[in-house]
Amino acid sequence: MSGRVTIRDLARAAGVSVSTASKALNDNGRMADETRARIKRIASEIGFRPNALARGLLSSRSFTVGLLTNDTYGRFTLPVMAGISEALVDHGVSVFLCAIEDDPALGKIHVDAMLDKQVDGIIATGKRVDRSLPVDLAGLPVPVVYAFTAGTPDSVTFTADDAQGAGLATAWLREIGRRRLAHVTGPEDFASVRERAFAFASEAGGNAPILYGVWSESWGHEAVARLWDDGGERPDGIFCGNDQIARGVIDALRERGVKVPGDVAVIGFDNWEILAQQTRPPLTTVDMNLKELGREAGLMVLSLAEGRTVEPGLRKLPCKLVVRQSCGGARYA
Amino acid sequence: MSGRVTIRDLARAAGVSVSTASKALNDNGRMADETRARIKRIASEIGFRPNALARGLLSSRSFTVGLLTNDTYGRFTLPVMAGISEALVDHGVSVFLCAIEDDPALGKIHVDAMLDKQVDGIIATGKRVDRSLPVDLAGLPVPVVYAFTAGTPDSVTFTADDAQGAGLATAWLREIGRRRLAHVTGPEDFASVRERAFAFASEAGGNAPILYGVWSESWGHEAVARLWDDGGERPDGIFCGNDQIARGVIDALRERGVKVPGDVAVIGFDNWEILAQQTRPPLTTVDMNLKELGREAGLMVLSLAEGRTVEPGLRKLPCKLVVRQSCGGARYA
Repeated sequence: MSGRVTIRDLARAAGVSVSTASKALNDNGRMADETRARIKRIASEIGFRPNALARGLLSSRSFTVGLLTNDTYGRFTLPVMAGISEALVDHGVSVFLCAIEDDPALGKIHVDAMLDKQVDGIIATGKRVDRSLPVDLAGLPVPVVYAFTAGTPDSVTFTADDAQGAGLATAWLREIGRRRLAHVTGPEDFASVRERAFAFASEAGGNAPILYGVWSESWGHEAVARLWDDGGERPDGIFCGNDQIARGVIDALRERGVKVPGDVAVIGFDNWEILAQQTRPPLTTVDMNLKELGREAGLMVLSLAEGRTVEPGLRKLPCKLVVRQSCGGARYA
Repeated sequence: MSGRVTIRDLARAAGVSVSTASKALNDNGRMADETRARIKRIASEIGFRPNALARGLLSSRSFTVGLLTNDTYGRFTLPVMAGISEALVDHGVSVFLCAIEDDPALGKIHVDAMLDKQVDGIIATGKRVDRSLPVDLAGLPVPVVYAFTAGTPDSVTFTADDAQGAGLATAWLREIGRRRLAHVTGPEDFASVRERAFAFASEAGGNAPILYGVWSESWGHEAVARLWDDGGERPDGIFCGNDQIARGVIDALRERGVKVPGDVAVIGFDNWEILAQQTRPPLTTVDMNLKELGREAGLMVLSLAEGRTVEPGLRKLPCKLVVRQSCGGARYA
């Protein structure tokens, strides 16, 4: 397409779907001759002029991208989906989400349904970056892009940069003057847990304690009990592996009469707003920019669908630190 | 289809999608003659025999249902979607979710995309039962069913029975011996807030206080401050309009040295497990059975797609009470 007039503008002007508009211009699809003529007339009126390449591509595209996930709570998938939708709606492309369970045979039914609908491409997403979805996506006739789930070596995969995010958090604690740091995190078998812990240790020093546990508030309580009752040096800064753990840590500290952020600064991970904003005080936390990750994945699958060549491999996108009062808030931000 | 062998069994046996299997049997769609012959042979081998009616219906169906939502956090939509998927996967039907924002023009693009993909039907869902989605679904060429969002008078709409759920909670508080009840809830402009409050008042008596506020933990804290510091009779049982408010109420009571459930029993609404299970003590709460609601909506849209006639109108499905320790737990369950 040349200039500023897009196929979506044409579809809106003609009151038809993007797919119908493209079929009309390409003389395929079933529609009344009158409709086709009207769409072509409007295209000329509003100055829509696809170039030769775009014309060829348009004719074979369905303007739909399929999104597959096994994240049944949607905490990670819905921000990713929102980012994909935002990036693609301007190209007239709709995103369809399909949730798959852990049964590969059922997963195949859903993938086949997407292929039957002739999606232009598929984005796979999940709930952890070191596991693949329980369905085989190799050798499909459409491009597949991975976002926040493990991809294949010859594909493009987007994830958040866990090490950089953990580094940000730890450096911030040092910057606001905290010297006795601890890391309370999830199960060590998660790759992201290991990457975050390694980055924490690099920044905080090898003697700073790292406590592995589970992804829950009650583990945050238990970890504080261990750190406070075991007779060791008590931390003045705690970086937590996710926001639920951080919430448990903050509640446990308050119940011991330890002031947050006065005595101990606390940082979480995820920026799960419904939790981070209601923590008392509100939680400073690392945001994985999942919406941006979705945007990038959406634009990538579109590029591939349009036939562009891209370098395969893992692309780590930077996290950002969202500063709220659990670190002293605006005083330091 | 007669007997126990379904189109899905055939698709799995032949290693093709349900849609391809149905096209093969109906001599439509594009595929190699060889493939068509193979599918027909397998159908006969495994004893798949569609009856005349089903044969006609099969030929025009795409085995896809579209789900539209404006619930961007997915707290309500994902359980609904899981229920739809579970109910329909045995019929070989996949569910595609499409998230729409508040721009009706963009909503129309997504609905058009679903129609282009020839979905067998559309289910509309949202985040509150007294608002419709920002897109016009009247007069579509496929059946539309509404679940947890406002429907049209001539359509089938499924919602949770708020009054019955609130009645369950209030009756339970009375049953465990609580006599001074209070209700702390969300904004009065929500129909579900008004229905729950009315049911509470009917069961608890007209003098029992009802405090309207917002859907947040901090409102739970504030409400406890009002109830305890305003000099009135203090409640021994509090029914909250959602789990976030209940969590704030429980934390505020603990910080005042008031024992839950010893001094005050607390009940929430939503059974949002990630919150309800981590409350201390874990929260007794009303579960809206959203998954069951999704199942019913899925089976309904399938019936309509198969041409069956059903009575339009609002169908309220019962809630259930999930008893955890905030009411005394197992002692009373």
